[in-house]
Formats: sequence, C-alpha cells, structure tokens
Amino acid sequence: MTDYQAPQQDFAFLMQDVFDLPTLWASMPEFSEVDGDLAAAVLEEGSKMLSGTVAPLRRLGDSEGAVHTTGGVTLPAAYKEAFAQFTEGGWTSLTSDPTYGGQGMPRSLSIMFEEMMWSSDPSFTLVTALSTGSIKMFSLHGSDALKEKYLPDLIAGNWTGTMCLTEPHSGSDLGIISTKATEGEDGSYEISGTKMFITAGDHDLTENIIHFVLAKLPGADKGTRGISLFLVPKFFVGDDGSIGEANGVTCGSIEHKMGIHASATCVMNFDSAKGWMVGAPGHGLKCMFAMMNDERLGIGLQGQAAMAAAYQSAAAYAKDRLQGRAPTGAVNPDGKADPIIVHPEVRRMLMELKVASEAGRALVIYAATWLDRAKGLQDEEARAHAQGMADLLTPLCKAYLSDQGFDGTVTAQQIFGGHGYVAEWGMEQWVRDTRIAQIYEGSNGIISMDLLGRKTIGTGGALIRQLGEEIATEISASTHAEVMPMAKALQGALDEVLAVTAWAVETAKADKNLVSASAVSYQRMLGSLTFGFMWLKAANVAAAGSSQAAEFDAAKLVCANYYFARSLPQVASFAAQVRLSASGMMDLNLEDFG
Amino acid sequence: MTDYQAPQQDFAFLMQDVFDLPTLWASMPEFSEVDGDLAAAVLEEGSKMLSGTVAPLRRLGDSEGAVHTTGGVTLPAAYKEAFAQFTEGGWTSLTSDPTYGGQGMPRSLSIMFEEMMWSSDPSFTLVTALSTGSIKMFSLHGSDALKEKYLPDLIAGNWTGTMCLTEPHSGSDLGIISTKATEGEDGSYEISGTKMFITAGDHDLTENIIHFVLAKLPGADKGTRGISLFLVPKFFVGDDGSIGEANGVTCGSIEHKMGIHASATCVMNFDSAKGWMVGAPGHGLKCMFAMMNDERLGIGLQGQAAMAAAYQSAAAYAKDRLQGRAPTGAVNPDGKADPIIVHPEVRRMLMELKVASEAGRALVIYAATWLDRAKGLQDEEARAHAQGMADLLTPLCKAYLSDQGFDGTVTAQQIFGGHGYVAEWGMEQWVRDTRIAQIYEGSNGIISMDLLGRKTIGTGGALIRQLGEEIATEISASTHAEVMPMAKALQGALDEVLAVTAWAVETAKADKNLVSASAVSYQRMLGSLTFGFMWLKAANVAAAGSSQAAEFDAAKLVCANYYFARSLPQVASFAAQVRLSASGMMDLNLEDFG
Repeated sequence: MTDYQAPQQDFAFLMQDVFDLPTLWASMPEFSEVDGDLAAAVLEEGSKMLSGTVAPLRRLGDSEGAVHTTGGVTLPAAYKEAFAQFTEGGWTSLTSDPTYGGQGMPRSLSIMFEEMMWSSDPSFTLVTALSTGSIKMFSLHGSDALKEKYLPDLIAGNWTGTMCLTEPHSGSDLGIISTKATEGEDGSYEISGTKMFITAGDHDLTENIIHFVLAKLPGADKGTRGISLFLVPKFFVGDDGSIGEANGVTCGSIEHKMGIHASATCVMNFDSAKGWMVGAPGHGLKCMFAMMNDERLGIGLQGQAAMAAAYQSAAAYAKDRLQGRAPTGAVNPDGKADPIIVHPEVRRMLMELKVASEAGRALVIYAATWLDRAKGLQDEEARAHAQGMADLLTPLCKAYLSDQGFDGTVTAQQIFGGHGYVAEWGMEQWVRDTRIAQIYEGSNGIISMDLLGRKTIGTGGALIRQLGEEIATEISASTHAEVMPMAKALQGALDEVLAVTAWAVETAKADKNLVSASAVSYQRMLGSLTFGFMWLKAANVAAAGSSQAAEFDAAKLVCANYYFARSLPQVASFAAQVRLSASGMMDLNLEDFG
Repeated sequence: MTDYQAPQQDFAFLMQDVFDLPTLWASMPEFSEVDGDLAAAVLEEGSKMLSGTVAPLRRLGDSEGAVHTTGGVTLPAAYKEAFAQFTEGGWTSLTSDPTYGGQGMPRSLSIMFEEMMWSSDPSFTLVTALSTGSIKMFSLHGSDALKEKYLPDLIAGNWTGTMCLTEPHSGSDLGIISTKATEGEDGSYEISGTKMFITAGDHDLTENIIHFVLAKLPGADKGTRGISLFLVPKFFVGDDGSIGEANGVTCGSIEHKMGIHASATCVMNFDSAKGWMVGAPGHGLKCMFAMMNDERLGIGLQGQAAMAAAYQSAAAYAKDRLQGRAPTGAVNPDGKADPIIVHPEVRRMLMELKVASEAGRALVIYAATWLDRAKGLQDEEARAHAQGMADLLTPLCKAYLSDQGFDGTVTAQQIFGGHGYVAEWGMEQWVRDTRIAQIYEGSNGIISMDLLGRKTIGTGGALIRQLGEEIATEISASTHAEVMPMAKALQGALDEVLAVTAWAVETAKADKNLVSASAVSYQRMLGSLTFGFMWLKAANVAAAGSSQAAEFDAAKLVCANYYFARSLPQVASFAAQVRLSASGMMDLNLEDFG
C-alpha cells in the first residue's frame, strides 16, 4: 500500500490557471482576505496533517471499527488522538461564520481540503462532514440565543452535530416520520421517537453531541409540511457553557455495514428528550435542506476522492508489478517480465481513472465557486443566478461523482488482480467504503429525480440553459488548433442536451412517469457533458501554456483528447435513453417479478 | 432476507421450449439415458437440498469464515454437515466419468444445478467447483494407474481436488513460476515451492485433499513450455486406498478477503512434497487449460447466479417496502405510502436485473449444449465445430456474465437503500462475494484478450462467423409480427459485429496493441449481441406459445422488448470503441501517472 500524496500540482493548476480563484475571491468582500499564498499554505499544511495523521487511520479503522456497548459508542483510540490534532489545528472551522469563531474561507478553497480528507479516511471525515453540514444549517436558521450557546463549541470542534432524519419506516419518504415533539412550559419541547442511520450519532471524540432532529408537533400536517426541527443536546449545557446532566437520548445499537466501519451508524432513541426548535414550526425539512445540499456536494466529493486515491495506488502498482510482456516487444528485457503498465488493457483502466478523477476534481471546485458567488456577490440578481448554478450542480455532483467514484474504485481494484481482493492492499476497502456514497444523503435515483424534476423541468429548463451559456462561452474561447475539434464535439453534445431538455420540459406536462423513468439517464448525460466542459477548460489553459511545467500541460491535453474520443460520445446514447421515458418499463405485472 | 427460490419455471422453459434439451440428449449415445423427466427430478431434488441445506450457510459463512491455525484450516461446523449431505446425495458426481463412479450427465443439465448452487452459497460452491474442474482435467490427462487410485474418491466427494498455479510473483504470467520438481528413483517427483490464492487448499470437510500443482523440472524451458503438472496428495494413499502419513504440503496462511469468507484462500507450502506427473513433461499448462476452461464457464455462472438471487430478494423488497407515491397517483391509498415497485426508477432497476439474469441463464445453458455436443456427437467434424463454439462462448460467459453479475448485485443492493449497505439484509454480501468472479480464473481483461486474440483473431474470425450463422438461423426463423422488429434489430447488430471482426482480423496484422486495447470493448459488444440472440430465441418461443402459462410467455415478450429497445443499441457504441484500438491510450509518459 502506498502512502497518500495530495494532488498539489493539480490543485495549483485548477486554482491558478483554470478557475483563477484568487481573482474570484478578491472580487468579493466576504473572501477578499484570502489570496493565492494563503490558499497554498492552507493546502500545504492540510496535506501534511492529513497524510501524517489521518490517512494512516483508514486501514486501522476498518479492522477495529466502531464499538457499541451500554455505555455508548467508542471509536479506535487513534481516532481520538487524531481528532484532537484536527481541532487544535482549526481544521473544523474553515468555512464557518467568523462571528462565532469560524474562519469564513471560501468553499472553493475548503473543497480541496475536503478532497484530501475523503482521500485520507472516509470514516474520520464523516464525523466532521456531518458536523459541518449541521453547523451551516444551524447558522442559517437558529435563533441568536441558541447560536450563542451552541455554535462556538460546534465550530471549534469541541462538540459535533448530527442530522436525525431517517426512521425505520421512513427514509426517502420523510413525510411519514412518527417522532413526536410536544411543547413544554419553558419554551422547550419533549422529543420522543426512534431515528436510524444516524452518522456519528454517538462517539467518544468530543464531550458533547448536538442532535438536529426532525419531529412532528401534535396535530401537524401528515406530510412534509408537518415536520419541525429541534436541537437536542446529548448533555445539557449550562448558561456558563458547562456540561451538565445527560438528556433523554441514547444510542440503541450500531449497524454492521459493508464499509466505513469506523463511522458509527446509530439507532438513536429519543425518550422525552428535551429540545429547542430551530426555525419555524413546519419548516423543519426546509431548514434541513440547506444542510443536505451542503452534504450532497461533499458526498459527490467522497466518490471522486476515493477514486483519486485508489487511482494513485493503482498507478504505483502498475509500474511496479512485473507480469507478461508488452505486445510491441519487451521494455524490461533484463527482468523476468515487464511492468503491467505496458499493457494497453491496464493503461486503458488507468487512463479512465485519471481522466475521470481529474474532471471530477474540477467539477466540484467549479460547483463550489458558484456557492461562493451565491454568498459573496453584491448584486442580488447575480447571487440568485449563482445559487441556481449551485442548485443544479450539487445533485449532479452527488450522483454522478459517487457513481463514477464507486466504479473507479472497482477499476483500480481490478488492476491489482487477486491482490486487489485481499484486505492488506487496502483496495477492496475503497470499494466497500465508497459504495455508501451512492446510497446515503439521498440515493442516486432520488438525487437524479431532483436534478431532472425540480432543478430542470421545475425551472422550465432555465438552469440548464444557464449552464449551457457557460459552456458556450468556453467553446467560443477555444481558439488553439489542437482544441478546436474538442470544442466542436462539445458543441454537438451541448446541442443534444439542450434539445432533449426542451423535449423533457414539454413531455413531462402529460407524461407523469418521465421524471422517475429518465432521471438516471439524464443525470449520466449531464455528467458526461460537464466532464467534457471541464476537459475543454483544462485543454484551453494547457494549450495556451499554464503556470505549470510544459509536461504537465502536455499530459492534460492527452487526457482531454482521450475523454473527447472515448467518453463524450456517451452523451448521445444517454440522450436516446432519456427520450424513451417509461416506454416498456411498466408493462410487467407485479407477480412476474420474482 | 427472503429464502432462495430456484427458478424452476424458467429452467423448464429453457430446457423444454427454447433449447429442447431432451431431444438433444436423446440424439447422443453418451447422454441418451437422460430424459426430461429425469432432468426435472434432478432439478427438483437439487433445489430442495440446496434451499434447505446450503442457502442457509451463506450469511453464517460470511460472519464465521474460514479459520487457519497451525493444525490447518477449519470451516464453520455447519459446512461439514452440509457437505456430508451433499456427497451422500451424489451431487459431486453429476457429470463425472461413469467408469470411476460418476453419473455422466450432460453439462447442459448440470449447469442448472450449478446455478442454484452459486445462488445458494458461493463459498460452499467453490469447494466443489474447483474439485469438479480438477476431476475433469485429471480424467482427461491422468494415467490409468493414477486415475484408478485417486479418481473414485474424488468423484464421490470423499476427497477434494485443488489447482495450484499462482505464486506470489506469478499470476497471469505463469511462465515465470519457480516451484521446482525433481525426479526421484521410484518414478515419483519431489516438489518444492510456494503457491498462493489456492481455493480450498486446506479445509476439514474431507479426509484428504489432492493437489494438482504446476512446477518446473530442472533445465526446463524458461517460459510456459517448461511447465509440468503433478498430483500431490495431502496424505499419502496406500494401494488399498487407506489414508497414510502426511505429505510435505502445508497451508501457511489464508487471505483476509473482501468476500467469500468461508472459502479458504490458501498459501500452500510444498516442502519436498512427493508427487506424480500428470500428462507429459512440459505439457502442464496445456493439461491445466481443460480445467481452467471448465472453471471459467462456472465463474461466469457465479456472476449470473448471484445477480439472479439478488434480483429475487430485491423484487420481494420492492413489493414490500412502502415509501412515497406512484407518480401517476397513489396505488395504495389506504396505506401510509405505496410499495416502491411503483416508481419507474425502481422498476427500471428491476427490469435490468430480470432481463440480464434471464439472458445470462440462457447463455450459459446454450454454451453448455456445445460442450455436450463436443463430447457426444458422433461426427468428428461436428464435434470440432461444437468445440469451437464452446471455446468462443466460455471466455465470453466468464467475463461478460461476471461483469453483468457484479453490476447486477450492486443494482439489487441499491433498491434496498440504506438497508442494502447493512449486513443483516444479505445484499452487501452478494456484492462482496461476486466481485471476485471478475478477477479469479483469469481477470476479465485477460479473458477478454483470449476472446478477441486467440478465439477471434487467432481463428481469422471463423468462430465468430460460426456464431453468426447460428444467430442468422434464429433471425430467419422469426416470423411472428411481434418479433420481426427484434429480428431486424439483431440483424443490424450482427452485421456490425461481423464487420468489426473482419476489420480487427485485418488490422491486428500490423497493430500489435489492438488485442489488448480493444479486448474489453469487444467482449462487451459480443455480450450485448448474444444477450440479444438469447432474447430473440425466447421471444420466438413465447410468441408461438410455449409449454408454460400464457402469462409467462407474455412476460418474456415484455422483457425481450425491453432488451431490444434499451440494451441492444450498445452494440454500436462498443463497436466504435473497438475500432479506436489503442489510439490515444499509450500517449502519456509513465511519470505522468500518479
């Protein structure tokens, strides 16, 4: 197993050359204190801490796992030590609100740190990722009194936050939750019910845990509009910030899962637990959406980062492992065999991994720039436009990158042959740990329905046209001879996507099955298109000569050519699938399944 | 978790209606004693035994696993009991040579039993599958003296056989093995070396284990022509069949793997172990190929059977789990929600699983009919023709069905949402257990190179043209109006495949990278084509009215239409990929990977 090396050169290329992030940050008062040097220092320090402290936890956490006893959940001791270093370094607070001790950094910077985190150890990352999401939601919707009491310790990483949504009978359909909240005399609420699949619902890394819980008030609407949101601490907090008695919330059990063994996935029992409402009554799901959207970009990143790390190990193995001879003649004639990287079949797998993980990296950063603009731009209309881009790109990143990421870990494992199936090489763990990214925070089917239904058809195609304008701008800027054929191919793919989108907006008026039936094909089509967009951006910069070495630019052009020759043509196949809608899909009788 | 139900109706449809196996068996003296009634009884009894005894082992074997101590490997106690029932019922000897106690049944019958085995418990199945493969090889290449001594107990399941090929530095490249054999004075050999990844290399199910070991004689050729094959018993066997002292072969350790935990994957140390040569000196790999080819059809089946079993559970779950409402209006208005099978996105996944697992089931039976003909036909030329079909279809089944099977288990897991990631539902185990099928017995990349290189280009395209004639015959026989459009689409796909094959045969003369670069795309193209072939066969029978219920035939036509509308178009995409060969694939410098 090779040690994790952060992709610092690709970060620099994307930050400086492709997206020119320092100029973007400087343009917004909110982020104007962040410049390229500070960003480089953050990535450099973050990389050192993660490679040295967090990445070594991954294999250990898999074999030791989280342990549940009547006293609660304990994580491997090394996790506690690493978490202490992590909070001491201020790594929990990168993007949080400076009013409460956060550092207020742009997401387009923190997202690179987040990639390194997911590449180091997904289980460790989950503790902080969920907490960061809940902090963001709470910052937006909590009352000042609640925020003053809870937010500084959450941001500092002294405590962590959870999101408690799912119940045994209620997962993707939250309207039917049965956890109840009844109002007490002091303005607090009593919460009773059982939640499941609660990530970091209990653990021993911090002295307190703050749960954000969906529950229904008596007589509330039966659907999602009846859901309210409550803050429920594990231990009560005194007005002086001291930790008091235990609240009525306990971990009943943890799940035995395919992967992320050191991430405790808890059944949480709320037994007349005391809580405080966040946001207005009945607005619980709306408040939670901010958190979920934030998480979803992170989950796409989990897939991309896993693929990037697995690719790194696979490339090293392919250069090292001697087996067979190159079809065009031995390249290592004095050795027993050639390194397997000489075989085109192995090279094909490596190229697919490299091309997808670099495009994925670019795409999440691109999405994050829109989140930053939506927060930092001065003009309201421009902020709304940016928010639209982020709303569109978030579900796309979640579903497309977690799918690509899982497939990528499988491909990387394949390069190791039989050794990939054995635990000691760490490759099979990537597959197991990454699989969950396609399922949690909204299964990819449901996320794809959000993308095609709410974000595309629901806006009459407006957000897709916005994205199309960005792509068209990049196509127009493609003037180097080497890049012109790519730009032309991308234009063809874009035309196809715009046409099929217009068709879908129109057809969905009468065809109620369309959104669900075509969602995944639409998502894959849009993913293929946007990867092409990212490769055209990279190719334009590389053809003109970036600030990186000439060899780096040359490699970018090789990868871009590979993508356009072999992957972009998929756009047309997926578009054809989208147009089939549910045709032939619902014809079988229920009794014929099984 | 639902109990496993064997697909008896689909077996009957395939056996009686699609392939008319009783007539085929009756036409060959070798199999003429097997009729439809006997076959149905075998499947019925086999199904009872497997559902009752073997299927319950799957989850248990995963959690308990194989255990290695200095005394050797022990499997969970329930495996030993089940194996005793298995051998008592004569299930180890279905296809073996009657001269030595086998039942001499056609593979096209036993393959249906094998599907049920793989669907019940892959770890249990591996013990017998490897043993059956080694028996077949030994029957073909062993001397009469050796066979008389060892074969009856192997066939009866009193002992099991292994195949010892891989060494730590030598997996896909067997030419560089370093296990040595030196001739003794009594005609035996002394074998020394270390083998790894040896399935069932040690276990406590039987009192003896017979290893078939590849090793090199002193001064042998450095490549594959220097490899000889040796029979090495764990315990010596007296002339009276009694078990004697231990030989110099021990299990050094077992691997900790992603899945198939109850299958012991052993490092085997041969320390001056005594062995006897099988086949001629230097012919070891040639002898072993018979065994490997046999195994490879079984490994394709592993993928298909896993998908079929996982589909079965997913369909039951999708009918049971209530979540959300059908987009066209509630179908379960009195309940809290509708069953998730009403959602087109869920239906899409179920249809993909059903269509692929039924096509895969048909394809392995079809391949097995050619194995039977290659053994049982009287005419030598006809036997050679049949062997050619089997040679072509075996690597195709291995790679395509294990890929489809793995993807299928992932899809079935997805239908369970978060519950699919949790061990108790048994779905994540299907994913972990099936992943190995893409890797062992030749990784799918290497198997695809065999398919495109040796079997296709190596025969000047002759085997593909043979297959093309079979497909063309089916197309010509498609006369029902409902089936005509499918036949026409399949003709288009066939023309494409024949054209790209002719192109590849010609291009490969100068393009040494072609086989490796295009292998996987070629395999997927041919897999898509042959699935279409299987669905056309099923549709022709169903349209004419099979011996099954009218609803069954109607469901077959729905599935066939689904396949032709949504999957067959892939043939053209894969063909385009094949024609790219290594273009753009080898352009990156080695230092740019990483």
